[in-house]
Amino acid sequence: MSKSISIFDTTLRDGTQGEGISLSVDDKLHIAKKLDFLGVQYIEGGIPGSNTKDIEFFKRVQELGLSAKIVAFGSTRRKGSVAAEDANLNRIIESGADAATLVGKSWDFHVHTALQTTLEENLEMIYDSIRYLKQSGLEVIFDAEHFFDGYKNNPAYAVSVMKKAYEAGADWLVMCDTNGGTMPHEVHEVVSSLTEQLPNAKFGIHTHNDCELAVANTLAAISAGARQVQGTINGYGERCGNANLCSVIPNLQLKFGYECVEEEKLAQLTNVARYISEIANVNMPVNQPYVGNAAFAHKGGIHVSAIMRDSRTYEHIVPEQVGNKQRVLVSELAGQSNIVSKAKDMGIEFDPTSEQTKNVIDKIKDLEHQGYQFEGADASLELLIREANGDMQELFTFESFKMLVEKNVGKPVVSEAFVKINVGGRSHYTAAEGNGPLNALDNALRKALITYYPSLKNMHLSDYKVRVLDDKDTTAAKVRVLIESKNFTDSWNTVGVSENIIEASWEALVHSFRYALLEEDPSEFIEPDALPQQGLVNH
Amino acid sequence: MSKSISIFDTTLRDGTQGEGISLSVDDKLHIAKKLDFLGVQYIEGGIPGSNTKDIEFFKRVQELGLSAKIVAFGSTRRKGSVAAEDANLNRIIESGADAATLVGKSWDFHVHTALQTTLEENLEMIYDSIRYLKQSGLEVIFDAEHFFDGYKNNPAYAVSVMKKAYEAGADWLVMCDTNGGTMPHEVHEVVSSLTEQLPNAKFGIHTHNDCELAVANTLAAISAGARQVQGTINGYGERCGNANLCSVIPNLQLKFGYECVEEEKLAQLTNVARYISEIANVNMPVNQPYVGNAAFAHKGGIHVSAIMRDSRTYEHIVPEQVGNKQRVLVSELAGQSNIVSKAKDMGIEFDPTSEQTKNVIDKIKDLEHQGYQFEGADASLELLIREANGDMQELFTFESFKMLVEKNVGKPVVSEAFVKINVGGRSHYTAAEGNGPLNALDNALRKALITYYPSLKNMHLSDYKVRVLDDKDTTAAKVRVLIESKNFTDSWNTVGVSENIIEASWEALVHSFRYALLEEDPSEFIEPDALPQQGLVNH
Repeated sequence: MSKSISIFDTTLRDGTQGEGISLSVDDKLHIAKKLDFLGVQYIEGGIPGSNTKDIEFFKRVQELGLSAKIVAFGSTRRKGSVAAEDANLNRIIESGADAATLVGKSWDFHVHTALQTTLEENLEMIYDSIRYLKQSGLEVIFDAEHFFDGYKNNPAYAVSVMKKAYEAGADWLVMCDTNGGTMPHEVHEVVSSLTEQLPNAKFGIHTHNDCELAVANTLAAISAGARQVQGTINGYGERCGNANLCSVIPNLQLKFGYECVEEEKLAQLTNVARYISEIANVNMPVNQPYVGNAAFAHKGGIHVSAIMRDSRTYEHIVPEQVGNKQRVLVSELAGQSNIVSKAKDMGIEFDPTSEQTKNVIDKIKDLEHQGYQFEGADASLELLIREANGDMQELFTFESFKMLVEKNVGKPVVSEAFVKINVGGRSHYTAAEGNGPLNALDNALRKALITYYPSLKNMHLSDYKVRVLDDKDTTAAKVRVLIESKNFTDSWNTVGVSENIIEASWEALVHSFRYALLEEDPSEFIEPDALPQQGLVNH
Repeated sequence: MSKSISIFDTTLRDGTQGEGISLSVDDKLHIAKKLDFLGVQYIEGGIPGSNTKDIEFFKRVQELGLSAKIVAFGSTRRKGSVAAEDANLNRIIESGADAATLVGKSWDFHVHTALQTTLEENLEMIYDSIRYLKQSGLEVIFDAEHFFDGYKNNPAYAVSVMKKAYEAGADWLVMCDTNGGTMPHEVHEVVSSLTEQLPNAKFGIHTHNDCELAVANTLAAISAGARQVQGTINGYGERCGNANLCSVIPNLQLKFGYECVEEEKLAQLTNVARYISEIANVNMPVNQPYVGNAAFAHKGGIHVSAIMRDSRTYEHIVPEQVGNKQRVLVSELAGQSNIVSKAKDMGIEFDPTSEQTKNVIDKIKDLEHQGYQFEGADASLELLIREANGDMQELFTFESFKMLVEKNVGKPVVSEAFVKINVGGRSHYTAAEGNGPLNALDNALRKALITYYPSLKNMHLSDYKVRVLDDKDTTAAKVRVLIESKNFTDSWNTVGVSENIIEASWEALVHSFRYALLEEDPSEFIEPDALPQQGLVNH
């Protein structure tokens, strides 16, 4: 049996059914390009029959010249009608897609309850619709909705649906666990039975994660003979999501030896997953398998000393195979070996038994006790280690800031920041407005520094997180702010903690600027001709 | 074979190895109580040999009188030493726990690489340590670390480890997939083989989610004869987490018919999962199976009309079986019935088809689109419904606020708020300092109102949450603030949204005060003798 698996991505269709996921046409085109780069065989782009946005996508995606087949989704013709006159089927044909996914009912209960028609008419709807699409030159993937529930309830009818689709010329017969309630052993049984009954057909599997088993069910179907996987990047999808291709692909390829994508593309999987989570504007769970930021992160002290000897002791694959990397987390649970390894990453050799190492650990422990968290703030940690090592240059020093937020009834709120810092022995007082306090502080600090360090033009804040640390003490509770910053080539994270959210934001902001300036040489900075000693409010 | 499964929760031990999870002793005690309420058999509380915090937990948990067995975790004795002199083993005994989890090596590679000892000495370490703990009267659960990797590499040795533990008197032999790299069919094979070789022993399974298969691997082990599940609430744990008990328990109970917890406790699962995520201060993924907010949420129009006919069309279980509920996203139908039922709770009769109801729904939709969330802000929703119903009395009106935060090097940060409101036709301008911006605003607003409404003395803010809503636009992203307030008898939640965190906080604060004053009669307010028109800064 073939070791090659066809990957069918439905991030742009089923993925957008997920709560909080909404993609513009441009977003969809960006994602399609990335999926094509990864090397999936099919990209399901949307439902041309449902909205004009999807019609526009199918039109514009053709200009990209992708290698993947572009697929349009739609339902079987309406009951009691003619396929050639069905508006939705015609929209699929007009869309310019290479292939069509046609969804049809295979659960008798659904035929009665949702379609409200007869079992016989449903078979005809499937047959007619597939024939019509095939005659129009499209490859047809038949998605048998609720196939497993249907099979459990009425196996003969569920199988007859697949036989009908096969007779009509469907290129792929896909078994869908639409409600996500099927167990892996059931999937294996049903897929085995169907593949035996239709030995010449090609089968696919489409699962949902309602029992946290979408990936396992996909593997069960493949081991029973299915050769196409329908899923989404990061498992996006309705309710609990679809089968997560970012776990399915490495499992099939690295654990079972199937071929899904090229090896060097698999090494881009983390990059693809994170890129698409950015476009979809959904935070990626830190503990997401294979591609998450913590997927190869080690916290326990014993684990860390073992992975230092041999990473296989606590890693099931080499993280780079999927483009991820090992991380050692700093926490009160962890010991010296964590800090030594972090320092090593920065090119600093720390003797594990030295006083210096002990001091850094004590400092970190103390800060963690105060509410700092360095696991998500590598750049703040690096500043701290460099300071302890004595190779931290201070390019500016803080004197004061003032932050004013003013709101009058009927008028927009105004935020102004006034920042006084010392650069190269001179005091600079700047003022700026902003969209909210952090933006105003960013603008004011930037104004003071940018004449000396023009590279700051390329740096911007890209993420901002706020967590209230202790719910018991209410308005005087501590607040932890995490800031992510980016320039053209790099991104870094910093942290600030205070009872005052403005002060916490300021601290994380200052860390970000200090980190951005780590590579700068203060002796080379551009001396502005006439530096103002006082700034004016200026947006 | 028994249909009863022993649930072993390690949220407090392995769960705290997860990135971003750090629990105080009080947090751990709160969680232990909740786990006991759910009805798990074992609560693993920590590692008494590793830190004093865990020792304190084991001491204080005894005062709670829980039904579950409390378990302390530790490793086998050190190589070349005597069990009775091993400090970590003695700490377990002194902890007062009912049972001990003893972790030992079963992968020959780890014995050589991590322990750096001989295979024979490792067996002795396991035997001695278990004997010693058993002789001290403890129940012993033996966790064979890396059992599946060990079995693949050297099956005879892995089995000999289990036999040795069994001979030493271990009550449970637990197979751990420590690195999370094992596939379900392998788990089934290995567990089947071991249970055949030791027919009288009791077996457990401990899996990790590195391949997104922790739940599937747990089910595979149970179907092969294991009868204890080790896992964590919400799947917290190192790297990609442990087996998620919130999926394992309903799968075993509702899909396979095993007994894990009482039926009425299963109906509390969502409550338990969300409570513990609050204590752990980790956002629950909206799409988490069974207990997530979107687990039974329906977005597609066709799906919605089908579930209206029969919810089984797109739901694999009845959500209430796990204490969750169906939600229909952005749907006017669901919206109406929701609002009508909410209004009813307040004693307001809304006609579902009226213009008034439609207006409230449109308003809510619009606000939700802007980032408001009323699920966690019932008081704000009530204000909105009362306004629409025309029975909202305005006891004060807003004129302006100013918020000043000032920080000078070497001095503590200062927050001052200046608030101008109109009460009973008079303008009041007050100023106050505070611990942070929200506290200052609270103090200033309170100062203006309290002379009129002395009942406000009994009201205070009890919780404060901040969420940044849109990562793309960074410092100008929207911020949602949720405030919980309390008085002697009641607690209520309010929401504010703005690009400016100060404005969002102010909005939620004003809602809270308006809600607190709902029962006040403005005609009866105490007219202060001499109301100051201007306030002075006053803490």
